[in-house]
Amino acid sequence: MEAIRVGEERRQLFAATRDLPAVTRDGVAVSLQVNAGLLVDLPQLHASGADGVGLYRTEVPFMVRDSFPDVAAQVELYARVLDQAEGKPVTFRTLDVGGDKVLPYWGGTEDDNPSMGWRAIRIGLDRPAMLRQQLRALVCAAAGRDLRVMFPMIAEVSEFVRAKHLLEREVQRQSAKGGEVPARVETGVMLEVPALAWQLPTLFDLVDFVSVGSNDLLQFLFASDRGNPRLARRYDILSPPALSFLLSLTRQADDAGVRLSLCGEAAGHPLEAMALIGAGFRILSMPPPGIGPVKLMLRSLELGPLQAYLHHLAGLPHASVRGLLRAYARDRGVSI
Amino acid sequence: MEAIRVGEERRQLFAATRDLPAVTRDGVAVSLQVNAGLLVDLPQLHASGADGVGLYRTEVPFMVRDSFPDVAAQVELYARVLDQAEGKPVTFRTLDVGGDKVLPYWGGTEDDNPSMGWRAIRIGLDRPAMLRQQLRALVCAAAGRDLRVMFPMIAEVSEFVRAKHLLEREVQRQSAKGGEVPARVETGVMLEVPALAWQLPTLFDLVDFVSVGSNDLLQFLFASDRGNPRLARRYDILSPPALSFLLSLTRQADDAGVRLSLCGEAAGHPLEAMALIGAGFRILSMPPPGIGPVKLMLRSLELGPLQAYLHHLAGLPHASVRGLLRAYARDRGVSI
Repeated sequence: MEAIRVGEERRQLFAATRDLPAVTRDGVAVSLQVNAGLLVDLPQLHASGADGVGLYRTEVPFMVRDSFPDVAAQVELYARVLDQAEGKPVTFRTLDVGGDKVLPYWGGTEDDNPSMGWRAIRIGLDRPAMLRQQLRALVCAAAGRDLRVMFPMIAEVSEFVRAKHLLEREVQRQSAKGGEVPARVETGVMLEVPALAWQLPTLFDLVDFVSVGSNDLLQFLFASDRGNPRLARRYDILSPPALSFLLSLTRQADDAGVRLSLCGEAAGHPLEAMALIGAGFRILSMPPPGIGPVKLMLRSLELGPLQAYLHHLAGLPHASVRGLLRAYARDRGVSI
Repeated sequence: MEAIRVGEERRQLFAATRDLPAVTRDGVAVSLQVNAGLLVDLPQLHASGADGVGLYRTEVPFMVRDSFPDVAAQVELYARVLDQAEGKPVTFRTLDVGGDKVLPYWGGTEDDNPSMGWRAIRIGLDRPAMLRQQLRALVCAAAGRDLRVMFPMIAEVSEFVRAKHLLEREVQRQSAKGGEVPARVETGVMLEVPALAWQLPTLFDLVDFVSVGSNDLLQFLFASDRGNPRLARRYDILSPPALSFLLSLTRQADDAGVRLSLCGEAAGHPLEAMALIGAGFRILSMPPPGIGPVKLMLRSLELGPLQAYLHHLAGLPHASVRGLLRAYARDRGVSI
């Protein structure tokens, strides 16, 4: 009973924060967004008080259908997503299939290491028909509205250049046949393949935004399969190498003036979100249930001292600094 | 006939370079070493004129046997390796099993992504009996001689600290029971998990050497299974992000005064070796057939201008700079 009452109190607390700004005690605003993949997720965008959909996983509707949806069906779907977002920004990630996400009607994968296999933009660039259809549908669905397109599993700048070119051709195509084009098109990448972090100056000249995909990124960074129970607790985003990596990203993105966000499970946990904000992220996209707890954490946080502390933590030899960060939060009354 | 004659001429040319120093035209010395894994590989150390064994893969004898070799059998084996090296340095890499290297007598792996699975030092630290036996055998075999131990798949500094502690305990154990210990023990890591590159200042304080394991590193850096034919030619070590990564490593190792090498297939190809030397590597370990061709390349190379060119290449948006490097070598008469 006690647990239920506490749970109910917290739920009411989160609901009460819904319309409050997501601002730290020392006045730093953070944009909190949701990850989504189905139309039924959209009401949560408004219920949670999030600023937008930071990651719309377009493969989800592909995976639950019996056959590959044609352009018209995709146009209808994406237009409804934009309708339901009611003007809040939606970042559409193009198909991330292959790997562990197999389309039932499209043959299986025989990769020895499917997560590092022929998937996502690799399929999109090698067999562009499916990607082009999807881009065509997105352009059409966003007619007169803003369109944000994010390409997954980009390992090097040249892949982004080729993918963006496909998108530009679809915009031109729509225009040439007299159709209405999006009011504005922004293109960016999911940063989840480590190599891309070594091409940031070149990348930042070409993209409108970069979103760190923390789920896959962590598994490649640590060469550690996230589905393997023997490794599940082995490596931590709250570890010196991961924090050092993230600090380097935010510094470089700030210098270049490029919009940087992070989307992944980690962003929805208040302790991890505290570290991410301390490391310089100002846009986090997470599963909808994380929005309330993360906003509560944020509104109880003084950011200034945390930033210096994170640089200190990134230099420690520890396997994880989770305990230190938890103690830090408790000592300062941060709601985690 | 023509091809055979050319092949024979090149073979004689490589043989003739065996006793010549591995030095560039502008006088920079590079240590060329061999990768080995069986006793039958050792004669090639001397035949090729290499400086030592930069990577001795200890799992190879484990994989070709019917049962796990006991300490005495391992002592005998490692002592013979050191005997046959005749004073040239041998870097023993501790067991890298698991992943795609399964011991027939030790059960299979059921990892979804075995390369990113429970393997190498992860097994060694979780089930230390096998690693401790191996370290005990290495300490005993190297009595009175130098011992170099390299731990594979180290993802973060804390793993190295724990592995090194196991080695130190075996040295103390040998000493406590009155046995002769190695004249000198050097410990280092294989850098093949990208995360470790984000902990270099901490790492460099603790290790005697670091060796980049280019085969696995490239597959994790690009999240690309090297065994997958659909991806085989997709990502290149001669690409801007990979070169940028390697340039950052050599700069940081130089600043810290830590011995840095690279071992992998790439080191044995003259064109790749040229790029690696241009990027700052001064120790390369490769399959033995690479030694002659790489030394020939080296002796025809003027290093100075190449270094500046590599920094330029690392900033390009190209998918690969292989063609540019090949043209560079041809224009300057570098033997590739």
